[in-house]
Amino acid sequence: MSLKRNVVPFVSVDHMLKLILSIGVERFMLELAEFIEADLRRWNEFEKSVRLASHSHGGVIELMPTSDGESYSFKYVNGHPDNARSGRQTVTAFGVLAEVGSGYPVLLSEMTILTALRTAATSALAASRLAPADADCMALIGNGAQAEFQALAFKALLGVRRLRLFDIDRSASLKCVRNLAHLGFDMTVCGSVGECLEGASLVTTITADKRRATVLTDNLVGEGVHINAVGGDCPGKTELHPDILKRSDIFLEYAPQTRVEGECQQLPPDHPVTELWRVVVGDAPGRTSARQITIFDSVGFAIEDFSALRYVRRLLQDRPFYEELDLLADPDDPRDLFGMILRAGAAVPPV
Amino acid sequence: MSLKRNVVPFVSVDHMLKLILSIGVERFMLELAEFIEADLRRWNEFEKSVRLASHSHGGVIELMPTSDGESYSFKYVNGHPDNARSGRQTVTAFGVLAEVGSGYPVLLSEMTILTALRTAATSALAASRLAPADADCMALIGNGAQAEFQALAFKALLGVRRLRLFDIDRSASLKCVRNLAHLGFDMTVCGSVGECLEGASLVTTITADKRRATVLTDNLVGEGVHINAVGGDCPGKTELHPDILKRSDIFLEYAPQTRVEGECQQLPPDHPVTELWRVVVGDAPGRTSARQITIFDSVGFAIEDFSALRYVRRLLQDRPFYEELDLLADPDDPRDLFGMILRAGAAVPPV
Repeated sequence: MSLKRNVVPFVSVDHMLKLILSIGVERFMLELAEFIEADLRRWNEFEKSVRLASHSHGGVIELMPTSDGESYSFKYVNGHPDNARSGRQTVTAFGVLAEVGSGYPVLLSEMTILTALRTAATSALAASRLAPADADCMALIGNGAQAEFQALAFKALLGVRRLRLFDIDRSASLKCVRNLAHLGFDMTVCGSVGECLEGASLVTTITADKRRATVLTDNLVGEGVHINAVGGDCPGKTELHPDILKRSDIFLEYAPQTRVEGECQQLPPDHPVTELWRVVVGDAPGRTSARQITIFDSVGFAIEDFSALRYVRRLLQDRPFYEELDLLADPDDPRDLFGMILRAGAAVPPV
Repeated sequence: MSLKRNVVPFVSVDHMLKLILSIGVERFMLELAEFIEADLRRWNEFEKSVRLASHSHGGVIELMPTSDGESYSFKYVNGHPDNARSGRQTVTAFGVLAEVGSGYPVLLSEMTILTALRTAATSALAASRLAPADADCMALIGNGAQAEFQALAFKALLGVRRLRLFDIDRSASLKCVRNLAHLGFDMTVCGSVGECLEGASLVTTITADKRRATVLTDNLVGEGVHINAVGGDCPGKTELHPDILKRSDIFLEYAPQTRVEGECQQLPPDHPVTELWRVVVGDAPGRTSARQITIFDSVGFAIEDFSALRYVRRLLQDRPFYEELDLLADPDDPRDLFGMILRAGAAVPPV
């Protein structure tokens, strides 16, 4: 990839689909998880901040920046639970990777699909450190846009092949079954959360309501499970009864953000939690006993998007799945920005 | 402009140039200033925050979001004073306008050129309230990428036709003279700041050094001038000697941001300042006497970018200067994001 200075490579939705297919979803998950893990290992090199959120009645628009001093990234992402009613995505996203030294963007990419992949890859990465040793069956509660990605990430990283599916809308579960039909899963569609949890030592909750919901009640959760709590991800939006949290060990991405946005918002601000990167580098234990309940309180963090953009950029080095965007004004003389208008005017007379 | 849901109109640099030429630079400035003024008039409807800056040795990368509850915008902008040495722009930018109700982006635009226009339009808008009544001559100190835009904005809004130019690099001044040669100005290239200021009741400082510089010393500034201080716009980067500030009335965009980034950073945090919007709505006086020194301590604020994107979007309603960007994943069923990959795979076998 060798481009002129004014040109920024752009990965459209169509190109992202082709890029993923050219790699294969499971390999993409594995490699993306490796990129995320590599970045978590150098956690202290990153500039970290809670995301900048603009809340409105119908949802939220967020900017999620980070930098490792060499590269800078940000993601634009919205969350609008009611969008589905008008046929829109609940979550859409795009992101930019830039060079810190010059401030010039070097990649613009769709991230609606990429976010689904990185969220699932992060969940599976966390579970690889936290799940019971023999975990091979996952309860998947909430079978919307994220569900299949979670299933495939857990298959790719943990070898999970048994899925128990539940959604308050059974057609969502049937959609999952259809989509995953030929991908090596043994799937059971369940009629209740309780039925869904039977025999599952992995529990992924990924519902979309923007409210304080109780998808999992305390009595339903037995010992020795790992809960991958993905759906509670903004203030006022939770899925787990607080009593579950109180008898679990809680792992999360970045405490200042998750304590406001995640399941943790239901706990006192000094409740003990462990940031995932500490487990990854070996500073903190992951699962320590078979009877322990572990929770990954996932809300999504900027470094995962940084890793995802970095991975996509690497893939583009020898794959043609981008177009060239004329995004940056690049006059011959940098002081002569106005001259660009004059010269364009000479070339193309005003209409 | 009627587009499919997944498509976001994109204004490239080339299209921005054509759009500006199709309107004419001065009319563009006038109309853009009207959009900015209209948004300043409803200041209290906006969500305001200081920009989110990532500082590095060579410069800064910033995100500047705002929202009026109907639309949301953000701009990505860098400032890297050393970029010019490698033939790059000191400042490059792009921005997005989105619909708050759905979170969907509705416009992606280059903003390197648009920022130059909106900065100049804001300066001239401020000067229209603050300059001495008879101001017809402007000293333009710093003749880099922003200079011609400032000149044309002051011509469009205030009728300024006499320019006195100074830059430590005389070739920059000569570039300005060339670029503005047929646009109705009477121009004098000066050999010093002192000479440049002679007879000018408007003074625009717009140098690019990322340091505490003293472009204007106290003894050089007489009574009855309006200073449009544009170049001091981040922590550690100023242009005016603090003694000038102390005998002037200071106007600025958004106090919490300018007190950190602008000339004001040299003053105690409680030094009296007036936000420009208050003058625009008539809540605060602008210039009150002929002998007063007024300063517009410009650093650039998110609402100006919001106005600029809103103006560009309006122009695109009946002008073809955009392309369609496949930025948003839009499955037929919003819950079926993964199905997009499957269907793309069925249509295009993996390579």
